[in-house]
Amino acid sequence: MTNTQVTLFQIDNYGPWTVTPEPRREADLQTLQSRLYADISQFVGNRDGYVFFTRFDNMVAVTNGCSFEDHELLQESVGNRYPVTLSIGVATGTNPVQALADATARVQEAGSAQDKTRRECLEGRVIEDGHRTDDDVQIAHFDVVNATGQYTDELNAFDTFIEIEQGYAELMRHMRYAHDSLSFFVGGDNIIVVCPDLEAADYEEAIHHVNDAVDVELQVGVGRGKSAHDAGFAAKHALETCRADGTRVELEF
Amino acid sequence: MTNTQVTLFQIDNYGPWTVTPEPRREADLQTLQSRLYADISQFVGNRDGYVFFTRFDNMVAVTNGCSFEDHELLQESVGNRYPVTLSIGVATGTNPVQALADATARVQEAGSAQDKTRRECLEGRVIEDGHRTDDDVQIAHFDVVNATGQYTDELNAFDTFIEIEQGYAELMRHMRYAHDSLSFFVGGDNIIVVCPDLEAADYEEAIHHVNDAVDVELQVGVGRGKSAHDAGFAAKHALETCRADGTRVELEF
Amino acid sequence: MTNTQVTLFQIDNYGPWTVTPEPRREADLQTLQSRLYADISQFVGNRDGYVFFTRFDNMVAVTNGCSFEDHELLQESVGNRYPVTLSIGVATGTNPVQALADATARVQEAGSAQDKTRRECLEGRVIEDGHRTDDDVQIAHFDVVNATGQYTDELNAFDTFIEIEQGYAELMRHMRYAHDSLSFFVGGDNIIVVCPDLEAADYEEAIHHVNDAVDVELQVGVGRGKSAHDAGFAAKHALETCRADGTRVELEF
Amino acid sequence: MTNTQVTLFQIDNYGPWTVTPEPRREADLQTLQSRLYADISQFVGNRDGYVFFTRFDNMVAVTNGCSFEDHELLQESVGNRYPVTLSIGVATGTNPVQALADATARVQEAGSAQDKTRRECLEGRVIEDGHRTDDDVQIAHFDVVNATGQYTDELNAFDTFIEIEQGYAELMRHMRYAHDSLSFFVGGDNIIVVCPDLEAADYEEAIHHVNDAVDVELQVGVGRGKSAHDAGFAAKHALETCRADGTRVELEF
Repeated sequence: MTNTQVTLFQIDNYGPWTVTPEPRREADLQTLQSRLYADISQFVGNRDGYVFFTRFDNMVAVTNGCSFEDHELLQESVGNRYPVTLSIGVATGTNPVQALADATARVQEAGSAQDKTRRECLEGRVIEDGHRTDDDVQIAHFDVVNATGQYTDELNAFDTFIEIEQGYAELMRHMRYAHDSLSFFVGGDNIIVVCPDLEAADYEEAIHHVNDAVDVELQVGVGRGKSAHDAGFAAKHALETCRADGTRVELEF
Repeated sequence: MTNTQVTLFQIDNYGPWTVTPEPRREADLQTLQSRLYADISQFVGNRDGYVFFTRFDNMVAVTNGCSFEDHELLQESVGNRYPVTLSIGVATGTNPVQALADATARVQEAGSAQDKTRRECLEGRVIEDGHRTDDDVQIAHFDVVNATGQYTDELNAFDTFIEIEQGYAELMRHMRYAHDSLSFFVGGDNIIVVCPDLEAADYEEAIHHVNDAVDVELQVGVGRGKSAHDAGFAAKHALETCRADGTRVELEF
Repeated sequence: MTNTQVTLFQIDNYGPWTVTPEPRREADLQTLQSRLYADISQFVGNRDGYVFFTRFDNMVAVTNGCSFEDHELLQESVGNRYPVTLSIGVATGTNPVQALADATARVQEAGSAQDKTRRECLEGRVIEDGHRTDDDVQIAHFDVVNATGQYTDELNAFDTFIEIEQGYAELMRHMRYAHDSLSFFVGGDNIIVVCPDLEAADYEEAIHHVNDAVDVELQVGVGRGKSAHDAGFAAKHALETCRADGTRVELEF
Repeated sequence: MTNTQVTLFQIDNYGPWTVTPEPRREADLQTLQSRLYADISQFVGNRDGYVFFTRFDNMVAVTNGCSFEDHELLQESVGNRYPVTLSIGVATGTNPVQALADATARVQEAGSAQDKTRRECLEGRVIEDGHRTDDDVQIAHFDVVNATGQYTDELNAFDTFIEIEQGYAELMRHMRYAHDSLSFFVGGDNIIVVCPDLEAADYEEAIHHVNDAVDVELQVGVGRGKSAHDAGFAAKHALETCRADGTRVELEF
C-alpha cells in the first residue's frame, strides 16, 4: 500500500515582493523562479525525491527519504542564497491528494501566502526510516505516442504545445478526481503522476478517457518503490518497453 | 502595427539523449532544463526580450532587440556549457502565430528534433534596427482575480493548480484561434500573452469566454512597446491599475 | 585525534576539452567552472562537508559525512548535467596533507588528467559512520585584521588583492610544511585551513610568521567537530570573539 | 595605445551580512559567491568583456564594450535575484592599474564597503563607441609549461596548487609594479594579465623573473583587440603556438 510523503514549498509573500517597490523585470523573475526550482530539485533529488515546478511560487514534491532536518536545512540554505524565503508543509498518507491537502493546510494555518509576517514556517510529519517499505510510492510516467513524428516535426511549436497542454489538462483533472493522483507536466511530452495503488485497468481507462476527450494518445510506464526516484526510474524503464513493443500500458511490478 | 520577432529554441536530439545509454535521473533532467531556460531568459532578457519555458526542450521567445549575431553567440555559449546543443529558428511578422510558424519551419526544414545529425542549425531573419518602432510588440499580462484569497489560502495546492491550469488551457486556445496570439503560463497565477494589434473589446471578450467556459475570473493589463520588456513592463503597470481600481481590462496606451 | 576524510575532484581531460576543436570563450569557461564548483559545494555542504574551489579543474574537499555512494551520486549527477565529467579519489588520515596525497594518488593511478580514455574513476575509502567522532576535523578560519579599514576602503582594489594574496601564499606554505595543514582562500579576506591536532601556540606562531614575512596581520578562530561544517561553524564563532575582544587566536574547544 | 575600461564590482555591506544575525553556512556563502560571479561573467562576457573572480566580494572586470546602461542593467538584475546588492565603479585609461585605481576611488567615495547605508552606487565613465579602437586592450595569457606532466600527474594536489600559487603571487606583483598590469589566476594553471602596451622583451623578462624567484616556468601568448574577448582569444591562439612550437613568448600582433 502506498504511503506518499508530500511536501509543499511556498515562497513567502512572493506576489507583493515581485511588485515592491516597483514591478521587477519579468526575465529576472523567470530566472529566479527557475533557478530556485532547480536547486530544490537537486536537494530533494539527491535524496531520491522528486520536485515538480507546479506554479513556481508553490512547488509540490514527493519527499519519501527526506527527513524533517533535511527540510530545515533546505529552508535555511534557500534563505541564505535568495532574496525570498520558503514556508514548508509536509504530510503523509495512502492517498497522495489527501497528503498534499494536509501539507497545504499546515502552511495555510501558519498564515496567508501574502502575509507580511509569515516567514519560513515548517510544519508537518515525515515517515520514519524504520517505517518505509518498497511499496510506498507509485509513479506513472506518461508521454504522447510519437509526439515527435505527429507534432514536433509537423506543426508549429505553439500548436504542438496546445495539443500537449490539452492532454495534460484533461489527464490532471481525471487522475485527481477519479484516482486521487497528482499529475505534473515535466517538459517535452512527459507527464509524471503520483498515484495511490492503481492497477493496469485504471491506467487503460485514463488513457481512453484522454483520447476520447481531447484526441491526444498517451502511453504509460508505471513503477513502485521506496522513493520517488526508485518508483520513477522503474516507470521510465516500463515506458521504454511501451516504445519498444508498441504497447500502451506497462507496469514494472 | 505589431511586428513581432519570434525565436524558437529547440534542444537537438533531446529525447534520445535523455535515455542513452540509460534513462537519466529525472531530478537531473529537471535541473538541466530549468537552468538552461534560466540562462536563455537572462541572455534574451538582458536585451529586452522575453523567453517562455514552454516545453523546455522547445522554448518560444519574443526577441525584438536581439540580432542574428546575438542568437549565434547564445547558441555558442550554450554549446560550451551544457551537454546538449540548441537549434534556432527566427522569424518576424504582424501575426505572432504566423511568425512562430515560420520560425518553427526553419528548424523543421533543417531536420527532425530527433535527427542524429542535426546540430546547432540557425536560420531565419531579424528586424533590422532601423526598422523597429514603438508599436512592434503588444503584450497582455493576465492574472486570476484574487487568486490568493479565493484559491491559494483556501484550497489544497493541487486543486488551486487545477483551477489555474484550466484557465490557462482555455485562454491559450481561445487567444490562438480567435486572436492569433501566443499565451504562456509564467508562474503563480500569471499568464503572459503575445498579441497582434488587439483592442479592449478583444480582451473583454476573452475574459468572458474563459469565465463562461471554466469559471475562472481573469483580469488583464496590456502594453505596447519596441521590445517585449517595454511592452510587458507597461502591461504590468496596467495590471496594477486593475488591482488598485477593481477593473478587469486596462490598456496602457 | 583528527581523522580527516579528504576528496579530490578532478575534471577529466579538461585542458584538451577547453581547446578542442578550437579554444572556447574564456567567459564561458569561467561560468562553467564556477557553477560546477557551486553545485559540488551545495552537494557536499548539504552533508556538512566543505569544498574549496582550489584550481577549479582540481577541487579539494573535506567530506567527513559523505559516504562512498554519495560520491557516486554526485559523479553521476555532474555527468548528467555538464559537458565534462569528474574523476574522484577519497582517502582518510590523521594528517590532512597525507590524506590528500593518498586521494590524489588514487586518481593518478587511474590515469593522467589529460588521458583521453580516463573517465569518471572513483577510488578510495571513507570513514564508516560508526567510527566518526567529534574530534575528526579541526578547522581554522583566518582573516586579515581590519581588512576593510586598512585595505578595502583605502587602496585600489588590486593592491588590496595583492596584500591578501601575499598573506595567503605565505600562510599556505607555512601551514603545509610546518603543520601538515591545507589552506584555502575563500573570498574577501578569509582563509580556511584544514588542520591536524594543532594547539594555540601553533596558530600564534603561524600568525607571527606571516606578519614577519609579508607584513600582513592575521587573526584566527579554531573549531573542532565531527564534520567540516561543525568544526568550521565553531571556528567562525571563535573568529567573532577575536573581532569582539581584539584577540588574535581563539579556540572554541 | 591601450585604453582599458575597468570596472570594479563590490558587494554592499557583505562582511556584516555574512554574520547577521548569525554566521551563515560556509558552503552557502561559497555557492552564492560563485554563482554571482558566474552571472556577472555571462553578462559581461556576452558583451565581449572579461570578469575575474578576484576576491568574490570585490571583482575586477575589463568592460570595453559595456555601456553605462549595461552596468545599470546588470546592477538591477543582481538586485532582483540575490540577497545582496552591488556597487560599481567604472574608469578608463592607458594604464590598467590606474584605471582600476580610479574605478576603486569612485566606489570608495560613495562609502565604505561596510557602510550600512551605501547601496548600489554606480559612478564613472565608459569609452564611447565612436572612440574605440583595435588596440584598446592587450591581454597576456600565461600558463605553466607542462603543468600536467610536471605537477598534476606527479605531486599531491596541494603541492601542485602551492607551486601554481607561488608562481601567481610572484607574477602578479612583478607585473603590477614593473608593468602597470593586472594579473588574475583563472583556474588550472592559467593566469590572464591585463596589460598596457608591452612588448616581447617585457614578457621574456617577466618569465625569467618568475623562474628565478620561485622556479616556476611560464609561457605566454599575447593578443590585442577592441575588447577583452578579442584580445584574449588572440592570446589563447598565440599560447597554442607556444605549446605547438615549444616557444615561451608569442605575440599575435
